Amino acid sequence: MADTGKVSPLAPATFPELPVIDGVTFSAVAAGVKYTGRTDVMLAQCAPGTTIAGTFTRSTTRSAPVLDCQAKLGGASDAGAAILVNSGNSNAFTGRNGFAATNSIVNATAAATGIPAERVFTASTGVIGEPLPFEKITSKLDHLHQTLSPGGISDAAKAIMTTDTYPKGASANCEINGKTVSIAGFAKGSGMIAPDMATMLVYIFTDARIDQPALQAMTSRCCNTTFNCITVDSDTSTSDSLLVAATGASGADASTEPAFEAALNDVMLDLAHQVVRDGEGATKFVEITVTGAEDDAGARIHGLSIANSPLVKTAIAGEDPNWGRVVMAIGKSGAAADRDTLSIWFGDVLVAENGWVSPDYVEADAAAHMKSDHIRIRVDCGIGSGSATVWTCDLTHGYIEINADYRS
Amino acid sequence: MADTGKVSPLAPATFPELPVIDGVTFSAVAAGVKYTGRTDVMLAQCAPGTTIAGTFTRSTTRSAPVLDCQAKLGGASDAGAAILVNSGNSNAFTGRNGFAATNSIVNATAAATGIPAERVFTASTGVIGEPLPFEKITSKLDHLHQTLSPGGISDAAKAIMTTDTYPKGASANCEINGKTVSIAGFAKGSGMIAPDMATMLVYIFTDARIDQPALQAMTSRCCNTTFNCITVDSDTSTSDSLLVAATGASGADASTEPAFEAALNDVMLDLAHQVVRDGEGATKFVEITVTGAEDDAGARIHGLSIANSPLVKTAIAGEDPNWGRVVMAIGKSGAAADRDTLSIWFGDVLVAENGWVSPDYVEADAAAHMKSDHIRIRVDCGIGSGSATVWTCDLTHGYIEINADYRS
Repeated sequence: MADTGKVSPLAPATFPELPVIDGVTFSAVAAGVKYTGRTDVMLAQCAPGTTIAGTFTRSTTRSAPVLDCQAKLGGASDAGAAILVNSGNSNAFTGRNGFAATNSIVNATAAATGIPAERVFTASTGVIGEPLPFEKITSKLDHLHQTLSPGGISDAAKAIMTTDTYPKGASANCEINGKTVSIAGFAKGSGMIAPDMATMLVYIFTDARIDQPALQAMTSRCCNTTFNCITVDSDTSTSDSLLVAATGASGADASTEPAFEAALNDVMLDLAHQVVRDGEGATKFVEITVTGAEDDAGARIHGLSIANSPLVKTAIAGEDPNWGRVVMAIGKSGAAADRDTLSIWFGDVLVAENGWVSPDYVEADAAAHMKSDHIRIRVDCGIGSGSATVWTCDLTHGYIEINADYRS
Repeated sequence: MADTGKVSPLAPATFPELPVIDGVTFSAVAAGVKYTGRTDVMLAQCAPGTTIAGTFTRSTTRSAPVLDCQAKLGGASDAGAAILVNSGNSNAFTGRNGFAATNSIVNATAAATGIPAERVFTASTGVIGEPLPFEKITSKLDHLHQTLSPGGISDAAKAIMTTDTYPKGASANCEINGKTVSIAGFAKGSGMIAPDMATMLVYIFTDARIDQPALQAMTSRCCNTTFNCITVDSDTSTSDSLLVAATGASGADASTEPAFEAALNDVMLDLAHQVVRDGEGATKFVEITVTGAEDDAGARIHGLSIANSPLVKTAIAGEDPNWGRVVMAIGKSGAAADRDTLSIWFGDVLVAENGWVSPDYVEADAAAHMKSDHIRIRVDCGIGSGSATVWTCDLTHGYIEINADYRS
């Protein structure tokens, strides 16, 4: 995947102002893992008492750091915690050497920070199958520890980018028993995006106090309707990881607070959308809502079938309101559907109903909507009450250029 | 999908010389359904006693003619049979009018040929969702019937093309009890190719005598390892149909002859490969063999996951031996795999084994293979004895041009 130097036309205007999260400090450094002239390693250190929840790829070929993190999630929460991430090399499909590299980084991070190794979470993102030059990272750990600061979150967000054309950050806050708690997080991802249990690399921090099982349950629920409902290219990474760290520094317990879960969901949805907006070659942000399906799972299957269809995605790139391809994608999805009860809208324009084109349909109306850079496709299956919304981007010459015209 | 006027670089040099099949006659006509200056309707008439087997798309939004054919397959075999196919309009997602159009065509065919309506099989291929101007077809039926001839098979193959850049034909023969029986068939298909029960439109004829249940069983078995193992773009048509007609005119009964099934399989595989070679935008024919999987079904799932991965397909277009993307596609497929027992070859070059790059791997060797227009990828999973081979093409700017840059 090549760096074309161009920023996605769907990028937000600026990186958002993120709040300082009590109990977390960040640093970043240029270690030269692969890239030159930019930072590529970040460290986050969390206060004693921090609980950590996470979701990870279900790929059967997942990377050594993913396996290491998964084994640690249920660990003790009275110690502090550290998160160490590098870009440029995913340490995936690197055999026994992969585990050795992960262990070296974990142990060096523990030594530099004084945090036990079983509370050090690492991740690596970048090229698959090349040995990770871990000494370049371990030699920078003292420097990373010495430069930790509460305001370093945007530097951390930049250090984990690979084919991303912009850093991705989001925040929210909510009131709990009269206290304000904050949530801030960042993500990376642009290609190989079809999350299964999670997507790419996502790190979210809050100063709320939340017991670990409650934090894990909230994280999994929010993930199912945010990161697990986006796709760029139907390809699932070997390294997808999402961690949520709750430091408790605010003193407010959010373990049973729906308002906190709603705020966490907002942050995750914002970051998920930013990943789609940075989809390789994307020129359109596409929102697909399916209602009236047999159940919510069936609605998501239909939505992802539409979102992953090369023929739907190329039609959107060509600004073609080609609803026949939407019918095709529903038909092949494997979820229940009845051709003759389907209704399909492009934007607010009803294009098809009762098994055929709508009698009032005027193609110019739908074509006008297709000129927008935020395309909305809605399908009502007419057979039940299941619903889901998924998000994707279009498939353009830019995707081919990034992935075929250059060597990765 | 646009007609760019270019013939696929992977096309065979010429349309093959097909044998005359005793008991079948063909005709074709330019009815002006959508295209001008070319034929777009074909008729095949089969002798009394002909048995017919078929496989069809499993799409839940399948077209009216597909539903009509499926209902007739088990019908009586002592009457003759007729097959009537038009291109330019798929009569799919056309509501009640779709059934009315199909019935009109079936009844007109029955009237012109004297064959009962329950033995008339029709198909339509082309744009989805537009009313089929069936009168243009029914008004040509007397002409079609009057011009039937045993040698008309290549004209029939041309009349069913849509985005195809060349007509697709294949034949085989075998000896049964000292008699030679022949098989000849043709297919169309180029985009929206990810067959589930069958692919696109395929018609195969033989002068063997085969009872209908035996013919159906052979057809389904052959379909599973030929048309159900190809993919161009992971999108499944609403109209996929394959029919095999056995006229019995040779007097040789092939109902229990493995040699006949092998010959039938050869014809179906040849036609399936020709569909892939005409994949929209294709510049490489790709053969993916998976061995050592948990079972044959798991091997096919892995193979199709690799074949449908946009990142694998773009890497092939870029002549990049990017085996990390093959590892990714196996990991996401959903079938069982163990990262550390995988072995991967590009051509005859072992690139990865034991969970990492092979110690003897020299990238220049694999890169040399990627320059070929026949790419072979082999994966051994190392966990069982399941195997499968699937076929696909690369994903290029040509695919985007055909499907995004022009209105369909």
